[in-house]
Amino acid sequence: MAETVSPLAPAAFPEMPPIAGVRLASAACGIRYQGRQDLMVALLDPGTTVAGVFTRSLTAGAPVDWCRKSLAHKSARALVVNSGNSNVFTGRAGREVVAATAKAAARIAGCKPHEVFISSTGVIGEPPAAAKILEGLPGAFAAARDSGWSDAARAIMTTDTFPKGSTRRAKIDGVAVTISGFAKGSGMIAPDMATMLAYVFTDAALPAAALQAMLKEANEVSFNSITVDSDTSTSDTVLVLATGRAKHRKVGRAGDPRLKGFKTALTEVLTDLAQQIVRDGEGAEKFVSIAVKGAVSDRSARRIGLAIGNSPLVKTALAAGDANWGRIVMAVGKAGEKADRDRLKITIGGVKIAEKGGPVAGYHEAPVAAHMKGREIEIAVELGLGKGRATVWTCDLTHRYIDINGSYRS
Amino acid sequence: MAETVSPLAPAAFPEMPPIAGVRLASAACGIRYQGRQDLMVALLDPGTTVAGVFTRSLTAGAPVDWCRKSLAHKSARALVVNSGNSNVFTGRAGREVVAATAKAAARIAGCKPHEVFISSTGVIGEPPAAAKILEGLPGAFAAARDSGWSDAARAIMTTDTFPKGSTRRAKIDGVAVTISGFAKGSGMIAPDMATMLAYVFTDAALPAAALQAMLKEANEVSFNSITVDSDTSTSDTVLVLATGRAKHRKVGRAGDPRLKGFKTALTEVLTDLAQQIVRDGEGAEKFVSIAVKGAVSDRSARRIGLAIGNSPLVKTALAAGDANWGRIVMAVGKAGEKADRDRLKITIGGVKIAEKGGPVAGYHEAPVAAHMKGREIEIAVELGLGKGRATVWTCDLTHRYIDINGSYRS
Repeated sequence: MAETVSPLAPAAFPEMPPIAGVRLASAACGIRYQGRQDLMVALLDPGTTVAGVFTRSLTAGAPVDWCRKSLAHKSARALVVNSGNSNVFTGRAGREVVAATAKAAARIAGCKPHEVFISSTGVIGEPPAAAKILEGLPGAFAAARDSGWSDAARAIMTTDTFPKGSTRRAKIDGVAVTISGFAKGSGMIAPDMATMLAYVFTDAALPAAALQAMLKEANEVSFNSITVDSDTSTSDTVLVLATGRAKHRKVGRAGDPRLKGFKTALTEVLTDLAQQIVRDGEGAEKFVSIAVKGAVSDRSARRIGLAIGNSPLVKTALAAGDANWGRIVMAVGKAGEKADRDRLKITIGGVKIAEKGGPVAGYHEAPVAAHMKGREIEIAVELGLGKGRATVWTCDLTHRYIDINGSYRS
Repeated sequence: MAETVSPLAPAAFPEMPPIAGVRLASAACGIRYQGRQDLMVALLDPGTTVAGVFTRSLTAGAPVDWCRKSLAHKSARALVVNSGNSNVFTGRAGREVVAATAKAAARIAGCKPHEVFISSTGVIGEPPAAAKILEGLPGAFAAARDSGWSDAARAIMTTDTFPKGSTRRAKIDGVAVTISGFAKGSGMIAPDMATMLAYVFTDAALPAAALQAMLKEANEVSFNSITVDSDTSTSDTVLVLATGRAKHRKVGRAGDPRLKGFKTALTEVLTDLAQQIVRDGEGAEKFVSIAVKGAVSDRSARRIGLAIGNSPLVKTALAAGDANWGRIVMAVGKAGEKADRDRLKITIGGVKIAEKGGPVAGYHEAPVAAHMKGREIEIAVELGLGKGRATVWTCDLTHRYIDINGSYRS
């Protein structure tokens, strides 16, 4: 955990109302960090359905393997998340820790082990501190309460500089429901295929299949649209947990029109959390939105946006406050997606800089340079080929990123 | 041009013997830099055949468009390369500069404009200094001589800290031929599909088709196997020029067994130049070889190697001398290529660190930590799936990279 909070952090952790059927707690187990909470647990009422998306890394950790398998049962009663050790590439020992954790938590929660979802985040390849987690579980679960969101969000942090929470209300069939979640993430953030750690809770009553379909869609435009450093984690996990305690009438499928408001609110929560991860990107000094329009498809637009957002040359120019739009041209060109140099338009901070294969006639850099000095940078790219669009969020690449990642293990 | 030479630079520029049919010169035109050579020209004897590979960037510059088109004529009589301005994303003005340059050079060399090959390297998106190039051409061509390799290599440098040359001898049918080349490149180096600027000359007599086939093959294991920063340039160009002045008997196709020695020597020259580009990677403090074996194909092995070599987290750990092999596991997992966590073996500096999904029993970090402090780092990854193999070269990611790229335009 860094000493100083990111300059891009929100003013405060949001007010998070209780969600019927969800109790949270955190504990300090000394897994890696001393003098801070490093274990988060959640207790969920019987009947809670679950949806999840995970890293597509082929070197995923034992906790991801466990969650993926458990998801088939569609029911969740407990969450156990530790920070400080990712339990990745830890072989049989790692699998045994996960199984033992699930068994112990299931005994306390009064459920099946496959109803316990587990995540770990931190260093890769060191044997996990099983005993410390197991010792911490009973006390943590005993302390679980319907508040404590901020503590829970803090307990899962690694190089994060602030806890990330988000909450929205929606109506299903006229009945109010709440969606609240928290997330962690700062480096190793390039969830091209999945995401970082995020846990979203709702009192809505939703079949697991509908929840999964809505998560998949919302995940594309939120967590799958951010990048800090192009490195995809081995532990990326988003879970959405629906306790079903809200009193609305039954809804069946994700396509049900009564779920429209819920889907919007879910997407907002995921997007808010995803953007907070970028705002806490390792060493970040600027929050950068890259809006791509006119691509041959939304997917193509997203990939072009990520090519720009992942380019070290674009990111170092952003850090320097340099409106080096030539590097944006370069990144569009290397994206491997359909593009036509001579139709490309590039706008920064609302000022059109380049079009028709060259700089705009009479382009003055001064207003763009002023925009580049700010904390929030807006880049827009228009490809002029089709209707595909996507917005991607990233941060700049600064000396702090190198400092943080040259010293993380020591 | 940086003031200090990369610590990874070779001791000296190699002795480069004259090649019959090749004359070189450079000149100072003040295109961007003051007080240094920034224009390189080569005059080639009639009958010179040419092969080329280029960036696959969809925002390639006007000079690349020109070379690609000219290549169809299979004949080259002159080269004109400027540094300081890449003539990329410069619209009609850029195309006109290329056409005027080719016309002027053709008049001097006594050839067709399409026999003039042109490259530009430097800032993107600024109108090129046509007049300065055109004014410099006559004097430069008049000064062309059969030595001057080191000056030519210097004239094409941008953020490079040393000129890059390489030479080999081979025999075709018992007759000695020479292959000599030079290259530039330091940042925006990720020639996944092509390469940076490199010019290779030989006195061998080779049909253009055979030359092209050999270049394509050698390019894969040399320029296409390096990365500095994952950013693919808009100007990548490799040309191989064969004057045909050597007195060997005619050879037809690239598959001719008499070309075996030539192919080996060509691959060595390209690999030597490619490695020198990595040794001059922006801010590089360490030269890193990543050998991948046991992949399902050579292509898959190369992509996994590049995923490791492009990972900012791996590269910052390398900069810090930290044997953080967990990040290598992460990079293998995100590569999008077939991999099996539990078959993966990772070796650094000859010491096996991880296998069977976990750290090697009794692994001691001390010898690996000592290796990591050195200038030359050896990483080996064994996937245990097939016979695919590739070696990729990269450098570390240091504070200097950010300094260089935050100030390049100013």
